[in-house]
Amino acid sequence: MTQKIFTVVGGGPVGALLAISLARHGYKVGLYEGRPDSRQTSIYQGKSINIALSDRGWASLEKIGVSADAKKRAIPMYHRAIHGVDGDLSSLPYGKEGDAIWSVSRSGINEQLLDIADEEANITTHFEHRLVDLDFESATATFSAKGEKQLVVEADYLFGADGAYSKVRRLAHNLPRFSYSQTYMPQSYIELNIPANTDGSHQLEKNALHIWPRKDFMLIALPNPDGTFTCTLFMNYAGDPSFESLQERPAVKAFFEANFPDAMDYLERPVDVFLEKTAAPLFLVQVFPWSFNRRVGLIGDAAHAIVPFYGQGMNCGFEDCAELDALIGKHDHDWEQIFPAYENARKPNGDAIAELSKRNFIEMSDLSGDAGFQLRKKIEAKFSKLFPKLWTPLYSMVTFSPDVPYSEALRIGDEQNKVMDKIMALPNIEDDWDEQYVMDQLFGLASAAFGDRE
Amino acid sequence: MTQKIFTVVGGGPVGALLAISLARHGYKVGLYEGRPDSRQTSIYQGKSINIALSDRGWASLEKIGVSADAKKRAIPMYHRAIHGVDGDLSSLPYGKEGDAIWSVSRSGINEQLLDIADEEANITTHFEHRLVDLDFESATATFSAKGEKQLVVEADYLFGADGAYSKVRRLAHNLPRFSYSQTYMPQSYIELNIPANTDGSHQLEKNALHIWPRKDFMLIALPNPDGTFTCTLFMNYAGDPSFESLQERPAVKAFFEANFPDAMDYLERPVDVFLEKTAAPLFLVQVFPWSFNRRVGLIGDAAHAIVPFYGQGMNCGFEDCAELDALIGKHDHDWEQIFPAYENARKPNGDAIAELSKRNFIEMSDLSGDAGFQLRKKIEAKFSKLFPKLWTPLYSMVTFSPDVPYSEALRIGDEQNKVMDKIMALPNIEDDWDEQYVMDQLFGLASAAFGDRE
Repeated sequence: MTQKIFTVVGGGPVGALLAISLARHGYKVGLYEGRPDSRQTSIYQGKSINIALSDRGWASLEKIGVSADAKKRAIPMYHRAIHGVDGDLSSLPYGKEGDAIWSVSRSGINEQLLDIADEEANITTHFEHRLVDLDFESATATFSAKGEKQLVVEADYLFGADGAYSKVRRLAHNLPRFSYSQTYMPQSYIELNIPANTDGSHQLEKNALHIWPRKDFMLIALPNPDGTFTCTLFMNYAGDPSFESLQERPAVKAFFEANFPDAMDYLERPVDVFLEKTAAPLFLVQVFPWSFNRRVGLIGDAAHAIVPFYGQGMNCGFEDCAELDALIGKHDHDWEQIFPAYENARKPNGDAIAELSKRNFIEMSDLSGDAGFQLRKKIEAKFSKLFPKLWTPLYSMVTFSPDVPYSEALRIGDEQNKVMDKIMALPNIEDDWDEQYVMDQLFGLASAAFGDRE
Repeated sequence: MTQKIFTVVGGGPVGALLAISLARHGYKVGLYEGRPDSRQTSIYQGKSINIALSDRGWASLEKIGVSADAKKRAIPMYHRAIHGVDGDLSSLPYGKEGDAIWSVSRSGINEQLLDIADEEANITTHFEHRLVDLDFESATATFSAKGEKQLVVEADYLFGADGAYSKVRRLAHNLPRFSYSQTYMPQSYIELNIPANTDGSHQLEKNALHIWPRKDFMLIALPNPDGTFTCTLFMNYAGDPSFESLQERPAVKAFFEANFPDAMDYLERPVDVFLEKTAAPLFLVQVFPWSFNRRVGLIGDAAHAIVPFYGQGMNCGFEDCAELDALIGKHDHDWEQIFPAYENARKPNGDAIAELSKRNFIEMSDLSGDAGFQLRKKIEAKFSKLFPKLWTPLYSMVTFSPDVPYSEALRIGDEQNKVMDKIMALPNIEDDWDEQYVMDQLFGLASAAFGDRE
């Protein structure tokens, strides 16, 4: 049997991981990336862009057999550090003791995966090759290479791992019966920076994700290993306040001072940066199918761009790779079976994490600063500790339970919400939440709803 | 003040009506259509394509002051003629006595509107001009004209009235913050024909919309003035039965004979036509915004392609035109005001009729053949006759109540459904439906829900 050839479009973390998985299954892989190799040319211009990786991401890397060093350099964040407008600081743990989400450098993990790909004899990597056309019947791709004429690349199969703005996906718009949606959120964002102390230590608590929840907008900060924090300000694009309405220096200054007084001691020239930068949009992409003619597939953000509010984007992309990796074995390289099995398995999970991520903006920006919400989380955490098989909080299912599919987490979470609505409606719940009768009532309701799990 | 110039892309019924409206408001209008002029070259190849027009469509034409002759040539359909699989025929009226939806020839009404446009000195019409590019900042359009080089057309404003496959809309995909979705339905369709009797009369009852509801698929027939019926077979694209599964002549023949035995006496070579034709897909398009830079807008199917199951596509497009026509007067030609007012007024209605149309496949293909559903309609009709201000059935709100916006009809319809669920759950409702106590109970429930309307 001749060795089958795969083209992978996109050399980001998902494309690199997919290439490794395919190569280890014996395929010859051409990995094509439009940008230059960041290991040789810094394309990040010194910016520390970090993303959250959690148990699903780590588990997926392990399943594919990639022992990334990423976790060594990642910073665990055990709780949300919530900054009130009055400067008050409160803490909300992410899960049970020891549970953490991890702040990792996007370029760092990408470069580690590219290094591993370089060691695979079956992978040839091509940077500065931009996809310009694709024949979905034959999986023949045309790239525009720097300094060269167009390059035509034939293959048996092709995957688009080319991210939220995927060219492969946009070329698929013209295919028959391809359903797609692209939905802009009302929010846009800009990135700000908190520098390190002169000794290289962090100015704010290192092992936390910092949130300044202000209902219609919020600021967050994730720690970097170099002592800095990368901050993101999420705010509406239009309305009041918004990126559109805040155009003049005095207004921007007043906005920051009124809303983030404590952060003003740390942020690096926030008013200047706000005025210099153009806010980037946030959007969701949902499509179906994720494969065409049993030859071309979509994976990662190319198949399901989501908003960043659950920190699950890269985790979900890695999970796509792990699922596909398992299906190649299960269906013994029969891509007539693998493509439909892959898209049918992953589509409901892509849709579920899209929905969960959208909802989480409200949790982060509004509810995390709300006493009732914090109490609710506290009751859930206590109950979950008493009856761990009966109740895993939604956030923990999504973040710390790789064996629970996103779609299942969403479904159970909605059921849990109905139960907790009843508990929170108890008279005197604010005072009595730690009393035995509250746990008893919750046990009764939870057993009725989820009893078969205990 | 110099005369402002509009480019209208698309010379179908909606584009022609929009051009007339704009011209009568004093604008100079260039109307561009990609196809040839059907009045000179028959582009329909003898096919009678008909569509349903109802009160919203007629009312919109009147508001714009177009006294179309269309109604004279249209055929009123007063009820659904439902053909059982055993050949049994039942009847379900569309509304109260005299209420009708109208079968009109698509090309006929289009040509009438183009004739009216030709009489407007402000309109210049250009056929065989296909849009290839558009500058959304300046409303400058580039057309590819037959036999000519590309033509660049400058204007103050531009509207895309270029239908479900709108090029204007597709070009907008690359604009910032443009949300769009295109969703394929599981069903596809082919058109079939029932010829006239030799004396030119109709073989089936003329003043009805004929339905052969078969749950997962259905056949419908609309009358034409020449004695023929245009039939449409809606069926899943894949699965069993489906256009994909039915490929062999014996299987297709058996399918028709088993499911449409009575229609086999009338249909013209249905098995041949089925095997010759490629089934056309059905899809929904939803986008926002409907305007860009206060210079370019979308209207009709270009803004909101829907499925045909409520017969409201052209009605909704005409209503867009009437709304815009009114807003031009209201905002005294200030397009900074008109564009946002137009899209904010129409978007919820476009979404509502999209949802209603999707749901109506189930009503037509499944429920219209269901005894419980027919009883429900009968009870609603009786109650509505007794208390017309308290209760207008959903179908009548959508079809015969142009003053009720689609979005309002959808909302009220959902409330009515909850009320009727309770009525249909009464014990013995099948036997007792005509008893006074049923009307009394319905009055109680309806008064509680809609009492402020009486």
